[in-house]
Amino acid sequence: MTIDQLKQDVCKANLDLVSRGLVTHTWGNASGIDRARGVMVIKPSGVSYEKLMPADMVAVALLSREVIEGNLRPSSDTQTHLELYRAFKEIGGIVHTHSPAATAWAQTCKEVPALGTTHADHFHGPVPCTRLMKTPEIRKDYELNTGRLIVKTFAGRDPMSCPAVLVASHGPFTWGNTVEEAVHHAEVLEHVVILAAETLRICPSTKPMQRVLLDQHFFRKHGALASYGQQSL
Amino acid sequence: MTIDQLKQDVCKANLDLVSRGLVTHTWGNASGIDRARGVMVIKPSGVSYEKLMPADMVAVALLSREVIEGNLRPSSDTQTHLELYRAFKEIGGIVHTHSPAATAWAQTCKEVPALGTTHADHFHGPVPCTRLMKTPEIRKDYELNTGRLIVKTFAGRDPMSCPAVLVASHGPFTWGNTVEEAVHHAEVLEHVVILAAETLRICPSTKPMQRVLLDQHFFRKHGALASYGQQSL
Amino acid sequence: MTIDQLKQDVCKANLDLVSRGLVTHTWGNASGIDRARGVMVIKPSGVSYEKLMPADMVAVALLSREVIEGNLRPSSDTQTHLELYRAFKEIGGIVHTHSPAATAWAQTCKEVPALGTTHADHFHGPVPCTRLMKTPEIRKDYELNTGRLIVKTFAGRDPMSCPAVLVASHGPFTWGNTVEEAVHHAEVLEHVVILAAETLRICPSTKPMQRVLLDQHFFRKHGALASYGQQSL
Amino acid sequence: MTIDQLKQDVCKANLDLVSRGLVTHTWGNASGIDRARGVMVIKPSGVSYEKLMPADMVAVALLSREVIEGNLRPSSDTQTHLELYRAFKEIGGIVHTHSPAATAWAQTCKEVPALGTTHADHFHGPVPCTRLMKTPEIRKDYELNTGRLIVKTFAGRDPMSCPAVLVASHGPFTWGNTVEEAVHHAEVLEHVVILAAETLRICPSTKPMQRVLLDQHFFRKHGALASYGQQSL
Repeated sequence: MTIDQLKQDVCKANLDLVSRGLVTHTWGNASGIDRARGVMVIKPSGVSYEKLMPADMVAVALLSREVIEGNLRPSSDTQTHLELYRAFKEIGGIVHTHSPAATAWAQTCKEVPALGTTHADHFHGPVPCTRLMKTPEIRKDYELNTGRLIVKTFAGRDPMSCPAVLVASHGPFTWGNTVEEAVHHAEVLEHVVILAAETLRICPSTKPMQRVLLDQHFFRKHGALASYGQQSL
Repeated sequence: MTIDQLKQDVCKANLDLVSRGLVTHTWGNASGIDRARGVMVIKPSGVSYEKLMPADMVAVALLSREVIEGNLRPSSDTQTHLELYRAFKEIGGIVHTHSPAATAWAQTCKEVPALGTTHADHFHGPVPCTRLMKTPEIRKDYELNTGRLIVKTFAGRDPMSCPAVLVASHGPFTWGNTVEEAVHHAEVLEHVVILAAETLRICPSTKPMQRVLLDQHFFRKHGALASYGQQSL
Repeated sequence: MTIDQLKQDVCKANLDLVSRGLVTHTWGNASGIDRARGVMVIKPSGVSYEKLMPADMVAVALLSREVIEGNLRPSSDTQTHLELYRAFKEIGGIVHTHSPAATAWAQTCKEVPALGTTHADHFHGPVPCTRLMKTPEIRKDYELNTGRLIVKTFAGRDPMSCPAVLVASHGPFTWGNTVEEAVHHAEVLEHVVILAAETLRICPSTKPMQRVLLDQHFFRKHGALASYGQQSL
Repeated sequence: MTIDQLKQDVCKANLDLVSRGLVTHTWGNASGIDRARGVMVIKPSGVSYEKLMPADMVAVALLSREVIEGNLRPSSDTQTHLELYRAFKEIGGIVHTHSPAATAWAQTCKEVPALGTTHADHFHGPVPCTRLMKTPEIRKDYELNTGRLIVKTFAGRDPMSCPAVLVASHGPFTWGNTVEEAVHHAEVLEHVVILAAETLRICPSTKPMQRVLLDQHFFRKHGALASYGQQSL
């Protein structure tokens, strides 16, 4: 894949966030990475979605963290994205939104428990929430520290078994093999959080689902034994 | 009716689920049955709704449980559908969705009480929720056991007096004389659950409606004495 | 106005209920009255909105309660409408919906308190809810008794000072000088109930608004001293 | 800018309120000011949005408070707008809506706490709510007193650091450098209130966000050290 193709994919992903109701105004961003070249492509900062073109995307080097192509300043969350690509070697795309349900849940500073099979089909266990950031982490290198904190939150956990996180008092980040898949996971996360919030409103004492049912649904769709869809025909 | 006609009806029903906001992505499925031939037609597994064509539908024999027509693998919920057709002789169509309100209520693992005439016009009493499945039921023949559990949940109750059920920690199934009617019941169920959830939020101590009012509304629309609509003109 | 013109207005009002999101399927009905002729025009029972034409409307005599024009059976709520026209001499149109918020509130069997100026601009005090119906009232002449109960609920109160009521365990009825105005009041009621429900969710201890503010807003828009709009220019 | 140009901007802003779902019916109004000429332009009272044209806008003198151009009566909230322009010298546009979430919160008569970065990106601290008005303030010069009370509520606080207020038992007012920006702030406020209400529903004990995080986000977008967007390239 060329960088130009990646710019098209990343631009399309950013526009998909709007058409699927996950971002309003300029709040949100999507990026993709070319691992072979060590180049991340990301949305520019604060540009209106209506005018967004592939040529507006900004290319940033993974190692040097410097802009290598593009006339616009990259998203203010660029350092967060870079940090995730450095730590999570298997991911190819990242999305950040202010989608209503996931953002509201992030503002509670709590994880999203697995309450049913819709959750289990996509996230193998609770969707975690980062701890509150410390004052020095906020005052200096805030965006970089946001990325570091997400990585710490996944210590000992495969990031592909739960391609989503809530940043406390802020909002969701999701990822995937491609930027398109990261958008899909942002959409799924919003749906799952809507379900969880409504479930607890109807019955506040609802317990997390059975572990065996969580495993049954997750592994029906993921991993070597997956039977869902047409893949093994 | 020919199998080809049934495929068209089932395909249309699956697409209607999308256009009526009851399913997103590939989550959900509709099926119909030809009782004379003993053949069920169902959506293929994990295929995008945008590309769904009548010829993609899969025909499965009711008795042998084997695919008899179609190049794609049938829905992962096929065995659940078959089990319901075997036990509920009067039904001609089945729908499974992840519609937000009904799925959230299913995640509470509780029945939906009858709180008003909108409910009573369609469901003669509470919409039941299955018990939690046991570990062996989940680990082996999970989809078949889901169907068996729904049937057990209706022991002693006419399935046409309440053409809907919630599967605990999972979501709703509905049925009807035809697949079109099953889609209609899925839509009605979602509406009724939205009302029930909102009612209990406004006033958590709301009691179920009077039995005599439930009967009055249900039998105004169903059975030999029905007076609603134009049927007896 | 001719009966044909009234049929057109009533047909349009019924279609407006759909386009404004106040009814789904065939649930709901609108009627208008020609006071000079003593004729009410109402939607037929259980007919799909997509096919509704002015010629389908049914004309019923106010005094004899008999159908005098139309090939279809009138709405199952016909006797309720007639009773309201008989008791509330000043009204020219009536609407019944199953709109989500107002129906959910009706299921709580409680009045809607006046919590803010949006309410006060339209309803001079709480929107009342009928008491539960007694078993004999339900078993015989149910629809007629529904109308009688609404009238009793307004004993001593000007129905135009609050052109809306909730029928317990059922849903809202609204009225106005014309059927068009009744539709408008159904829309306003839904909006006001959404606000009230959300207000009490954010802060369950919210008290009704100040009486003086209720009066200020209601009389800014209604009665001899109204100053809102362009009417006195 | 000419008065005609201002009328076009104010008319467009009023129509934008409708297209963005912030007002229904005739409930709401937007105004702009020409500081050099001392002229405010505002929507006429109670006119349907469908028919609204730039020539319908009403021009009012800031000092004399008298209509100087226009054939229609100005918005019933005119005196509130004038009072805000007199006190808040830096603002160029004002918007009043009955948007659902912000109006419901205003009906609770409480401020909106800062619970996350979406809030902090736009409002530097809680969005305040006015105290209840006193009976004499309501009975005489109600709209003028509403403006005075908003101004008192901002005593000691820069109105541009929080371009929004809730009027108790009533609804939101927002402002900005231009009427277009005031519309934007009305939209942002609605989004932020939706998030806050949902956050407190999921977890009623949620605390306000850290002060240092509030500052970090607000000053990333506002003031001399802002780094968001493309402004400093």
